[in-house]
Amino acid sequence: MDLSRSGKDTGDIAIPVREVKSSKSGKGAPPVVTTTTRLGQTPPAAGWKRGVGIIDLILRVCAIAATLAAAAVMGTTDQNLPFFTQFFQFQASYDDFPTFTFFLAGNAITCAYLVLSLPFSIVCIVRPHVIGARMLLLIFDTLALALTMSAASAAAAIVYLAHNGNPNTNWPALCQQFNEFCPRVSGAVVGSFLGVLILTVLVVLSAAALRRN
Amino acid sequence: MDLSRSGKDTGDIAIPVREVKSSKSGKGAPPVVTTTTRLGQTPPAAGWKRGVGIIDLILRVCAIAATLAAAAVMGTTDQNLPFFTQFFQFQASYDDFPTFTFFLAGNAITCAYLVLSLPFSIVCIVRPHVIGARMLLLIFDTLALALTMSAASAAAAIVYLAHNGNPNTNWPALCQQFNEFCPRVSGAVVGSFLGVLILTVLVVLSAAALRRN
Repeated sequence: MDLSRSGKDTGDIAIPVREVKSSKSGKGAPPVVTTTTRLGQTPPAAGWKRGVGIIDLILRVCAIAATLAAAAVMGTTDQNLPFFTQFFQFQASYDDFPTFTFFLAGNAITCAYLVLSLPFSIVCIVRPHVIGARMLLLIFDTLALALTMSAASAAAAIVYLAHNGNPNTNWPALCQQFNEFCPRVSGAVVGSFLGVLILTVLVVLSAAALRRN
Repeated sequence: MDLSRSGKDTGDIAIPVREVKSSKSGKGAPPVVTTTTRLGQTPPAAGWKRGVGIIDLILRVCAIAATLAAAAVMGTTDQNLPFFTQFFQFQASYDDFPTFTFFLAGNAITCAYLVLSLPFSIVCIVRPHVIGARMLLLIFDTLALALTMSAASAAAAIVYLAHNGNPNTNWPALCQQFNEFCPRVSGAVVGSFLGVLILTVLVVLSAAALRRN
């Protein structure tokens, strides 16, 4: 409200409000009021923002766990079948499918970004009125959301195909043979969708925190 | 600027700032200052927000065009091959692939949502300080972004497979035969990704507009 005068903290901003009130009410001494405000409790908006920041941090850690688990499960999945034809041995691993490689890369990138974003999230808790960090988090959370959603959906499409095949195009279902590969890959996809869900909540939370400025 | 009288607008907030300044400078008459503010030009924040609102509206129309084109191209793609085996005639249409059906539905839903969101976008231009409509748009834009990204990525995974096949899993490439089907489907996927790009910009723009409250 009087950003025009001070820096970017609303801790500073609340003070002139008290001045206005006191000068309106009965010409009381503004410096005294200012001192009590500086030493006293934080304004309600800051408390609310701090709460959002703490939820943000917790959700961020959960999203790190989800995407890390998805990437790890996908990266360690590998199954050889005990029989082979004259052409090649049947084996399935994530790098036989370009889509699964993309899935692994996408989840790993999101996981790395989320780890790097933790300090910014902590800054938003310590200084609830810093707008720059919150805005930065929102923009990159949106991009991470898009990347993770892309990786998860593409992998889900291939997993669906592996489970059901497509008779119209002569694509056989794999999961009858690869009975260990398919559940692990499906689990990785579920973990990735969980990460997407958390990132969506993070974007909306950041927007709500920005709104209260 | 008479918005300030109608309720929750920042127009109310801007007025005491002038009062503070004037009472500090030389105890000038605050009511006069207030009156000129009410009748005068809009504050810079409102003009900035109105500009964002207009860009928002234009981008929204572009996104409607992109998703509608993607859905329409996918829905009208159908190709029969001039030869057939003893089993079935070779034909490809979007409803042979569950993923393409999902693509069509996802893009159609996003397109319908975007059309329905146009009035809210116009409200944000006419009354730049209404926070509710802006927040609503941001939340649903994020969800639409996730849905469209999901549809586009899943379809892209299948299109990639149709172009290249997967020798490890005996999934043959289709696009040698279906030389008309594949380019059309690829075009639809590109249109959908364009929609995703626009929606990402819309989310960031909405967040920037919320920030300036």
